[in-house]
Amino acid sequence: MKYLEDIAVGETYAVGRYTFGADDIKAFARRFDPQLFHIDEDAAAASHFGGLCASGWHTASIWMRLMVDYRRRIVEAARAQGEPVASIGPALGFRELKWLKPVYVGDTVDYKSEVVETRASGSRPGFGLMTIRSTGVNQNGEEVISFLSTTFVERRPQQ
Amino acid sequence: MKYLEDIAVGETYAVGRYTFGADDIKAFARRFDPQLFHIDEDAAAASHFGGLCASGWHTASIWMRLMVDYRRRIVEAARAQGEPVASIGPALGFRELKWLKPVYVGDTVDYKSEVVETRASGSRPGFGLMTIRSTGVNQNGEEVISFLSTTFVERRPQQ
Repeated sequence: MKYLEDIAVGETYAVGRYTFGADDIKAFARRFDPQLFHIDEDAAAASHFGGLCASGWHTASIWMRLMVDYRRRIVEAARAQGEPVASIGPALGFRELKWLKPVYVGDTVDYKSEVVETRASGSRPGFGLMTIRSTGVNQNGEEVISFLSTTFVERRPQQ
Repeated sequence: MKYLEDIAVGETYAVGRYTFGADDIKAFARRFDPQLFHIDEDAAAASHFGGLCASGWHTASIWMRLMVDYRRRIVEAARAQGEPVASIGPALGFRELKWLKPVYVGDTVDYKSEVVETRASGSRPGFGLMTIRSTGVNQNGEEVISFLSTTFVERRPQQ
């Protein structure tokens, strides 16, 4: 990751894409969100969704996984170039999470994140706060998930 | 579930409680949030968390599971009494989700939800919208997660 001072508002990250399969949707939902429209094709077809669709927590958790993998690739690339790597802290939470459309079996969601704010942190010396807006768009160009999250990012060390 | 008209602001639901074990924390994180402080005890001990702790998406997903189970119990109890059961739609999203404290191995989180608003829905006839604030409190009385969510709830059928 880059230091806070090197991150510009408006930068976008192509976080990754993921295709949701039926077994995958049902496995997550059986454990964490066993509502019938997430675990049973027939019940889902008869529901207002009209077909089996992923738990919203599943589509959010997949973003997290893709973001962790994305950051690893960035860190490895920086190290390979001999560049310094800033630490990134945990997320404090998120805001305005919206599940805008169902994610059906076979849908491919393309996740992107855009920096919307960077600022100093009063509570944690040496770190600042970065806020990003993350979205997932399906293969039809429809936004299916959107949220804002704020994370600690290391500041450039003082010389 | 009760009809929208029978739900009062301020009602609270004891959603359920859950103890986070090490294997459970690591299994979720390996799949969805493989940051070292969620999957490796030694790395977690050396991190700013000071010990292995659950992914925030895990603590949120467990709330969802407990809420689904809670609703099932309510529905079964109402049916056993011969009472009508209102439909509840999917959540539209979440707001102001905060991970306030880490959830460490062995922590027990007690989840509660409180109704903060009920209102009519312009978009979906026969349904209204209920907003609840959900919180998780650990065994030391510390709030570890908090968020608002809004869900469709069936209105009382017109006579």
